[in-house]
Amino acid sequence: MPAPSKLYFEDFTPGRVFEHGPRRVTRDEMVAFAAEFDPQPFHLDEDAARATMLGGLAASGWFSCSILMRMSADSFVLNSSSMGAPGIEEVKWLGAIRPDDELTLRGTVSEARTSKSRPDMGFVRFEFELINGAGQRVMTLTTSLMMGRRGDRAP
Amino acid sequence: MPAPSKLYFEDFTPGRVFEHGPRRVTRDEMVAFAAEFDPQPFHLDEDAARATMLGGLAASGWFSCSILMRMSADSFVLNSSSMGAPGIEEVKWLGAIRPDDELTLRGTVSEARTSKSRPDMGFVRFEFELINGAGQRVMTLTTSLMMGRRGDRAP
Repeated sequence: MPAPSKLYFEDFTPGRVFEHGPRRVTRDEMVAFAAEFDPQPFHLDEDAARATMLGGLAASGWFSCSILMRMSADSFVLNSSSMGAPGIEEVKWLGAIRPDDELTLRGTVSEARTSKSRPDMGFVRFEFELINGAGQRVMTLTTSLMMGRRGDRAP
Repeated sequence: MPAPSKLYFEDFTPGRVFEHGPRRVTRDEMVAFAAEFDPQPFHLDEDAARATMLGGLAASGWFSCSILMRMSADSFVLNSSSMGAPGIEEVKWLGAIRPDDELTLRGTVSEARTSKSRPDMGFVRFEFELINGAGQRVMTLTTSLMMGRRGDRAP
């Protein structure tokens, strides 16, 4: 199978949707992440979590962001001219991510604009959603990626 | 030494500043994070990174967020009535975080408001900054934490 054509700015037309998954997240990886980066009791311990408003062990929101990043990398970022992002416009943690949830990523291009200061690139805004196995949106994230332009490269 | 008094909503008055650090970030932890969550070449490999606009190996922005989370946990979150956050209002990655950078966290309370639907808690908005050893702000992050109110608990 030939490698898929690399994606450039010009390929990210508003409305285009990228999907990836499902990707199962395990208790072990959620807890390992929390132990290193977000050791709040409701991310580490089932008993402690049960008494909180989360009602049970739930992933750190930063783990959720990191999994979204990995899924977007596996979906299209690693096969693109991405140069990273200057930041994040918004994250909403809408629902808890639980051990063994099967997550699907959907990323929709909402805007694409060329850069005035750097004509070799443009900004592609994505509305990302993480959806669990029950079809619930558990997280949304809006960010603009810097993408190199195809220019005179062969498509 | 007695344990410090636990912090409640009432303790997070606008203008109050929390500082933590410095905290050194190593090449190994940056690369381990990138390999798991953000395997773009400029986060993994010095040679690949040199040719990019980052100009050398730089931490994933999600690693930076996760380190900020950990520093805020160690600074005050674990000693507070925090119930987490509903999301993130904004993240700006202003400069590269490099191996062996010494990061300092500064978190300033910009707003505190009680919850209408849940009188036992309030929202505390923080403007977080990560500052490197050269005094440069490398990242800012705005988020509102949900904090339990002291109510009739002893201060």
